[in-house]
Amino acid sequence: MSTARTEVEQWDVVDVSVELRSPGNPFDVRPRAEFRLDGPQDGRTRRQVEGFYDGDGVYRVRFMPEQVGRWCYRVAGPDGATLAEGAFACVPASGDNHGPVRVRDASRFRYADGTPYRPFGTTCYAWTHQPAATQERTLAALGDASFTKLRMCVFPKNYAFNAAEPARFPFERHDDGTFDLTRPDPVFYRDLEEQILALQRLGIECDLILFHPYDKGRWGFDRMDPEADERYLRYTLARLAAYRNVWWSLANEYDFMREKSMDDWDRAFATVERYDPYRHLASIHNGTRMYDPASLALYDHHRPWVTHVSLQHWDVQQMRQWRTQWSKPVVVDECGYEGDLPYRWGDLTAESVVDTFWTAVTLGGSVTHGETYLHHGDAIWWAQGGDLVGDSPARIAYLRQVVESLPDDVAPLDDDRRHSAPTLGIEGTVYLQYFGRHRPAYRIIELPDDTDFTVDVIDTWTMTSTPAPGTYRGPSRIDLPGGPGIAVLARATE
Amino acid sequence: MSTARTEVEQWDVVDVSVELRSPGNPFDVRPRAEFRLDGPQDGRTRRQVEGFYDGDGVYRVRFMPEQVGRWCYRVAGPDGATLAEGAFACVPASGDNHGPVRVRDASRFRYADGTPYRPFGTTCYAWTHQPAATQERTLAALGDASFTKLRMCVFPKNYAFNAAEPARFPFERHDDGTFDLTRPDPVFYRDLEEQILALQRLGIECDLILFHPYDKGRWGFDRMDPEADERYLRYTLARLAAYRNVWWSLANEYDFMREKSMDDWDRAFATVERYDPYRHLASIHNGTRMYDPASLALYDHHRPWVTHVSLQHWDVQQMRQWRTQWSKPVVVDECGYEGDLPYRWGDLTAESVVDTFWTAVTLGGSVTHGETYLHHGDAIWWAQGGDLVGDSPARIAYLRQVVESLPDDVAPLDDDRRHSAPTLGIEGTVYLQYFGRHRPAYRIIELPDDTDFTVDVIDTWTMTSTPAPGTYRGPSRIDLPGGPGIAVLARATE
Repeated sequence: MSTARTEVEQWDVVDVSVELRSPGNPFDVRPRAEFRLDGPQDGRTRRQVEGFYDGDGVYRVRFMPEQVGRWCYRVAGPDGATLAEGAFACVPASGDNHGPVRVRDASRFRYADGTPYRPFGTTCYAWTHQPAATQERTLAALGDASFTKLRMCVFPKNYAFNAAEPARFPFERHDDGTFDLTRPDPVFYRDLEEQILALQRLGIECDLILFHPYDKGRWGFDRMDPEADERYLRYTLARLAAYRNVWWSLANEYDFMREKSMDDWDRAFATVERYDPYRHLASIHNGTRMYDPASLALYDHHRPWVTHVSLQHWDVQQMRQWRTQWSKPVVVDECGYEGDLPYRWGDLTAESVVDTFWTAVTLGGSVTHGETYLHHGDAIWWAQGGDLVGDSPARIAYLRQVVESLPDDVAPLDDDRRHSAPTLGIEGTVYLQYFGRHRPAYRIIELPDDTDFTVDVIDTWTMTSTPAPGTYRGPSRIDLPGGPGIAVLARATE
Repeated sequence: MSTARTEVEQWDVVDVSVELRSPGNPFDVRPRAEFRLDGPQDGRTRRQVEGFYDGDGVYRVRFMPEQVGRWCYRVAGPDGATLAEGAFACVPASGDNHGPVRVRDASRFRYADGTPYRPFGTTCYAWTHQPAATQERTLAALGDASFTKLRMCVFPKNYAFNAAEPARFPFERHDDGTFDLTRPDPVFYRDLEEQILALQRLGIECDLILFHPYDKGRWGFDRMDPEADERYLRYTLARLAAYRNVWWSLANEYDFMREKSMDDWDRAFATVERYDPYRHLASIHNGTRMYDPASLALYDHHRPWVTHVSLQHWDVQQMRQWRTQWSKPVVVDECGYEGDLPYRWGDLTAESVVDTFWTAVTLGGSVTHGETYLHHGDAIWWAQGGDLVGDSPARIAYLRQVVESLPDDVAPLDDDRRHSAPTLGIEGTVYLQYFGRHRPAYRIIELPDDTDFTVDVIDTWTMTSTPAPGTYRGPSRIDLPGGPGIAVLARATE
């Protein structure tokens, strides 16, 4: 029996449900489906997809069509018998549906439809493990803010300021508190899917963390054996890979997971590659600060299945070096959080966080925000979500607005001799230059000799943009307000 | 004829003058002297010293006795004939005379008498090339400030904001503007010596820069041939090496001197080693920012004649790495300057400079200050001296006061697991920990279980120290004011 809609937008989810009875653990049974586009075939027109058991005797197969046209499908049981067949029309995407995010080049992302995508991320690691009312507040806060990516974990979090037991887990729990790792909990996943879709409606990519060390044996999800890991990944991928706004973060702070080896991560990446037909963005995030890169056994980000570099580092001045080193977009997914926790990773001023964002973005990278204030109600944003109370989100939104006002093709301009500060732009057309902690009384900006430019002086903290009088060409003296956190935006006049 | 005093303090200057007539260029003649301490001999009791021509038919030999006792000397002419003989009593040093600064270990300096010395430097590169009134103001400003080291050049400076022609040069000048590099100007050197002694009276070490690139062919001192370099160095060393507060900085930004090779620097170091009998501190200072150490051809600071590392770098967070790399004290002699010049090296806020000082010092290094404000009268401190108008010198003085209140043996404590922020101290006794841009509401400080500690909370900007109530032992929660630039000082009670 098929419940697929007969018409679906490109990059939306087709969900085919079938009923199937079999002896034993129903999660051990996985239907397989083939989706095929009418017409000439290429790699993206014929897809093998694994289904999953959704409880109550129902199995599902989910599919994200990447091409417009008429698709046929056939779902088969473990014995090869046809369980369902059907067809649907895939129609062009509409509204805010731009498809999944892809890597464009060594410093940039874009959506599948070509629209630029820029990560302005935040973190709520365990927000889906909080009470429903807190989750609602989180979504409301995200709706008011301007973030385009959220880092969040599948597994719950056992950590400082994170002691509460969640209501549900990814696996069935026995009365003695242990988990049946062969029996995922469909209700848990349905709730998770609902929130991934809620993020999608807000235009937020879900950077989903598949493993993390903040368990410490309390529930044991950080020390499952390879078979359980594989079973967990296949189930998660079968359920979630069809959601266009999902990214795979193989782990948060993988190097703090003593029970896992580099081989385990290679194997996990291979599983993700095998069971994600759409090749969503995939990365792995380190925990150490990489003060001394030579001595750190960092996961090899050169490997082809690592689509982009998801670093933890507190000094984004090195962004250009990282981009050059890996030739992939670099997202500093932890640079320290705005807050006042008694930990060095969670006690930064908003000024410092905003400076980090502007520095990284004008050097051609991205940064992820987090908020860690004590004593603000029942939740700390970085883990539980709830309310945003800090001063950086509004400034990050302003930065996003400035960057999105630039032409799509802006890229980092790495010529240090020409540009005496980090500069994003297009040579000859537009330059966004950021001075950071520097606060010159004026600067000589190197503009082309053959075009007139207008220049705006931007205060990144007050979020104001003030035109410098007149137009400029060639080396141009631009008077500046003399404080830190200033940027200039020069645009060629038409 | 000898004019040596019959009694001299240890590490003071003995000056023996002789008259000698010889045909040709009198600067080509160099008397030599031997100084010998009565009693059992060792390496420091018998010294060969080269003299110099001081004009008007007078030659001088200068000597710094490093040991108390009765010294005899004999000065010989180029033909070996005795020009002078004599003796003097070297008596113990008194007052603020602690002798020259030596390297104590891989992170620390001390004076020859064992007193701790800590570099809190500033820069007035060309202050001795300014009008006399400006030089007086410079000395007055240094007297009011709290710096213990001054970086300054022998040669004049031709650079942005440094266009004026100095009144005198190290060499005689022809009417056509060229210099006779075989004829130093004794009057120039006498003025220089006077200012080195003026610094000595203020307790300031003179970090004397022997070569620099800020000439660009205007006078040609940056492109003399090896013979002229050697002649210049021997004359300078013969005159100045007996001053206990002199350090040799072989060059400022040596890598910007296209006319010099690494071999030239090796040879210059060898000349300094040969003609400085006292082995004053010697270093060489880079110009590039070393963003990528692997790609930079940095002078090899491992070489034995480099007593300490004199870096230019803008990110002193790497201090521990540098100390470990070279096993020598590290002085960041340029980290950017407080000011508002239109250059990225001269436009930092005082807050940023003060943070850099505290960071470097608690990480076990040192930093040098500079000031580059536009529009403050006729001089910019960093090059010309004059007046200090910035906000960092008072805070640097406060840091010096805090550090000097600690026991002599404090050293950087590199155990990151125990100390969650840069810490200077002695395990079990005293800890000075700095949080920099971090501003936790409180921190858990790891104190020993077996001793009571008092804890002061220091605001590095307001220069206030507030005792935390009570005493502490073991892991201790210390409430903090929640702003950046905070340090804590924990001391064991007696």
